[in-house]
Amino acid sequence: MPPKPLSHWLPILDWLPRSRGAQLRDDLLAGVITALLLVPQGMALALLAGLPPIVGLYAGILPPLVYALFGTSRTLAVGPVSVAALLVANALAGTAADPGSAEWLQGAITLAALSAGILLLMGLLRLGELANFLSHPVLSGFTSGAAVIIIVSQLPQLTGIALPRDAGTLTQLGHLFMELPRLDPGPLIYGVVALLLLLMARKAPLLKPLARLGIPPRATLLASRTAPLMVVLGATAIAAFTLPLLPVAVVGDIPAGLPVPSLQFLAGDHWLELLPAALVISIIGYVESVSVARVLAWRRRERVDPNRELIALGASNAGAALTGTMPVAGGFARSMVNFEAGARSQLAGIVTALLVALSALLFTPVFRYLPLAVLAAVIIAAVIPLIDVKALKAAWRFDHADGLALMVTFLGVVLVDIELGLAAGLLLSVGTFLWRTGHPHAAVVGRVPGTEHFRNEERHHVETWPHLLLLRMDESLYFANTAFLEQVVARRVAERPELQHVVLICSAVNRIDHSALETLEQLAENLALSNIVFHLAEVKGPVMDRLRGSGLLEAMGDGRVFLSSEEAVEYLGTHPRPNGNEQENQDSPSAENHP
Amino acid sequence: MPPKPLSHWLPILDWLPRSRGAQLRDDLLAGVITALLLVPQGMALALLAGLPPIVGLYAGILPPLVYALFGTSRTLAVGPVSVAALLVANALAGTAADPGSAEWLQGAITLAALSAGILLLMGLLRLGELANFLSHPVLSGFTSGAAVIIIVSQLPQLTGIALPRDAGTLTQLGHLFMELPRLDPGPLIYGVVALLLLLMARKAPLLKPLARLGIPPRATLLASRTAPLMVVLGATAIAAFTLPLLPVAVVGDIPAGLPVPSLQFLAGDHWLELLPAALVISIIGYVESVSVARVLAWRRRERVDPNRELIALGASNAGAALTGTMPVAGGFARSMVNFEAGARSQLAGIVTALLVALSALLFTPVFRYLPLAVLAAVIIAAVIPLIDVKALKAAWRFDHADGLALMVTFLGVVLVDIELGLAAGLLLSVGTFLWRTGHPHAAVVGRVPGTEHFRNEERHHVETWPHLLLLRMDESLYFANTAFLEQVVARRVAERPELQHVVLICSAVNRIDHSALETLEQLAENLALSNIVFHLAEVKGPVMDRLRGSGLLEAMGDGRVFLSSEEAVEYLGTHPRPNGNEQENQDSPSAENHP
Repeated sequence: MPPKPLSHWLPILDWLPRSRGAQLRDDLLAGVITALLLVPQGMALALLAGLPPIVGLYAGILPPLVYALFGTSRTLAVGPVSVAALLVANALAGTAADPGSAEWLQGAITLAALSAGILLLMGLLRLGELANFLSHPVLSGFTSGAAVIIIVSQLPQLTGIALPRDAGTLTQLGHLFMELPRLDPGPLIYGVVALLLLLMARKAPLLKPLARLGIPPRATLLASRTAPLMVVLGATAIAAFTLPLLPVAVVGDIPAGLPVPSLQFLAGDHWLELLPAALVISIIGYVESVSVARVLAWRRRERVDPNRELIALGASNAGAALTGTMPVAGGFARSMVNFEAGARSQLAGIVTALLVALSALLFTPVFRYLPLAVLAAVIIAAVIPLIDVKALKAAWRFDHADGLALMVTFLGVVLVDIELGLAAGLLLSVGTFLWRTGHPHAAVVGRVPGTEHFRNEERHHVETWPHLLLLRMDESLYFANTAFLEQVVARRVAERPELQHVVLICSAVNRIDHSALETLEQLAENLALSNIVFHLAEVKGPVMDRLRGSGLLEAMGDGRVFLSSEEAVEYLGTHPRPNGNEQENQDSPSAENHP
Repeated sequence: MPPKPLSHWLPILDWLPRSRGAQLRDDLLAGVITALLLVPQGMALALLAGLPPIVGLYAGILPPLVYALFGTSRTLAVGPVSVAALLVANALAGTAADPGSAEWLQGAITLAALSAGILLLMGLLRLGELANFLSHPVLSGFTSGAAVIIIVSQLPQLTGIALPRDAGTLTQLGHLFMELPRLDPGPLIYGVVALLLLLMARKAPLLKPLARLGIPPRATLLASRTAPLMVVLGATAIAAFTLPLLPVAVVGDIPAGLPVPSLQFLAGDHWLELLPAALVISIIGYVESVSVARVLAWRRRERVDPNRELIALGASNAGAALTGTMPVAGGFARSMVNFEAGARSQLAGIVTALLVALSALLFTPVFRYLPLAVLAAVIIAAVIPLIDVKALKAAWRFDHADGLALMVTFLGVVLVDIELGLAAGLLLSVGTFLWRTGHPHAAVVGRVPGTEHFRNEERHHVETWPHLLLLRMDESLYFANTAFLEQVVARRVAERPELQHVVLICSAVNRIDHSALETLEQLAENLALSNIVFHLAEVKGPVMDRLRGSGLLEAMGDGRVFLSSEEAVEYLGTHPRPNGNEQENQDSPSAENHP
């Protein structure tokens, strides 16, 4: 292989020099719009993760800049994301630290460093495809479940009612219900009004009048996407003046300034304890990032390289650890906004990062009177679209097993434990697949009269022959279905005393493993003990290559490998061995027996 | 379903009344031969499990009687088996008890009771097929590894050198090597001579002269199979007279008598701790039993019911727990002997059990001077055939992944831990299967000129068309290969700017899950964004039934489902859309492009 150019590893060297006027303008605008969304969301997500709000802004500075260097997606918006923030809070709840404390922050930074290591290692080992073992239903159930937990976690901010931290979701909801009389009107009013405004701003029909007024779609989008910032600023202004009238918890002083890169993350001492959580954060973050990057790449006939994405996301998380913030990923919603706002390259991401840095440097005093309830509303509005009931219906309708995997993951995540729920869904979906390939469709076939087509004898009127069993297995043969194959043949043999030949039709067999090979050898030998010859038909080329070197053809004795079922019938149907069984007078295929 | 007759659950009601003279004689002889083998083996296996020798005889009394009632195999010999004995010793080494102590025995009984519960539960839930997930290479590696450990475990008896109990196999061998100067001649002489005699007695060439002398084969077999008993009795006689001359550890007093059924097994208090080991003992024992039962059943066109075997083996283990002995299973070697000796029904097993009971009652004083080294030789001779190097070669030659799974299991069992080794092999074989189905064979096909056959364009000279991509996936589509499918299509689309149609040929697709469905929908929509129409061809009936209810056909827009690749080419090849791409002048398939 020729050495790859440097631009293979640093795609920025490819796209940056080719940037031109119109594209620069598009990227600039998209970067601004995304930043307006990211500033309030970043602070809110930091709170969700149990961290000071400014840490959420940090997560929007260096990590996207690093991604811009290494990433293969032009439009993925990397930064703080809701599921990672939830997983950070969940992982650290198991340690001795308290939310908001220095140890808690240290734990979040350790998680970012671990995620960086895991992703870089997976990238170097080219293990990107491991993520494929998370099936869509499991991912959907996980995301919906995480969204529900996030919403529940925001209820204390919204209601002023403290909930037990380590309790299950149901216990927390029960507690909330019992404490309802103590509802605090301040946060409730701010929170509910903000939530309603945010949800309304997203509804397309409400934006249509603007379009009719001649406002260009991009400007409409701008108005829609800046809603979180507008709501946040408006609520802050109101709270600043009315705080004595309507008391509500506010953000308070945020230390302004940029993060100073430091190796402080090396000081963490819960590495091993946090490793499983970091693994889940990395893989889920990676899957989310690559999924949205793929969708966006398709729209412009671009390509995303899964293994280089691992490197890019690993480097971004290293940037997060270096600047003292929580793990990052490519967020679904913010990337879509970035794309729809016209982003053409990672230049948009760079603009976003610079604007967020500017906010961290200059504008934090603005948020002094920002009610926490409003930030809770920002998070809730962001995750509500993640709850996907349609996916459950569609999966269940298509295949109950898929629907069940989704439901088990969702309920496991919500009611038991986030990581256990994910593991249960993963095991269930892999188990279902193995179970099904272990119980393949097997059909006894016969010939459609007057043709060379062979069909299932239970579904079609076909010719069959008492001394001949044509069995088609609709699956590759491997260890989990060898016993099934043996049982099917044994049952048929026991049913048919006149049987002389068994032909296994392998048209749907893409692969045979050594367990299956041994089973076929054993089967051929066992059938020979009963004076039955075992044949194969329609064996695919690569499978035949394998079988040629093995002992199967020898074990088959007089058995042959026929190119087609028709050939098998022509050869065997017209030449039944007269000495095979009691009924010796049948020497031609008798279609009459099976009208 | 009509209610099943009582004989379905108690097969003895079916076969016993139909027993006739010749069969009774055959069963009687087979029962005697098997008992002659079982008595010394049972005592030796008890010692292997760290139990008093008499307990091994107990395992050959009630359990086979219970199996005779419930078992569906006519000739399976149930009783103490080497792998279960090893697993018992291994499991109890983790507890505080010492081998030979009352607590140790209690632990073995607890394991039998747990195995009974597990097997009965699996039988009631009809989970017999779970055992299918142990592939042949993994089982082979496990059995070979267990045999090696058993042999190493017998070296102290053979050499008189005590080995550290909890150390790994390599450490033990190293220790043995260091202590070689302390070799004890007594056990070594008895052990080596006994081992050589036992191995020679098994060699067929040595038995031929007997046949030439006119001795019937069954008598020869009898002579061969009684070798262990002869060796044991001979060695005992010699030791009784020469013990002062050549000191050697002997069995000593064995309390004679039959086991008294008791519920003492309920007194065990390590239930939870021993559960994982009991699970492995049950499943391995079940797999071994059913494997040999199947092989024997085939030879006489009989059937074995895997789920009723679970019940029968569970009941046998309940019998073991009730009579205060270790877990039992159907042994491979002893069942083969039983079969070859002419057993026709479980009557042979009943005869064996009665003879073993007689031995326990009357003959234990005979074994007072039996050297332990000779029992060690009996065990070693019994397990040597289990070390299957040929299986490794055959598996590796057929498929390196199968060979690797066997090797990993073997080395894991021998060097690390019996149960961890088994788990590693299981994970590796399942992982390999998932990995392969996740990376299926995918071929771009074209038409063999002048025919309606379509073949891989990389292997054959075929007609292709620049505006048409015919892609065949040789695997069912499911979550682990959806990303692969998408990447293959994306790469081809990026390579071919003139592309207007993608046809996915599904002739080898036996199943589509919801993840794959969503990927196909997404693919169709993404392709549509690039003005490419997505089609399907050769979709199997059951798959098509599924797709009809889904949103895929809608997402495909103008895309069609063709019955055959030929139909796709006829329809699409002669009607390229003129407005699709830059090159508008190609309006017929151009075979000339690909000579």
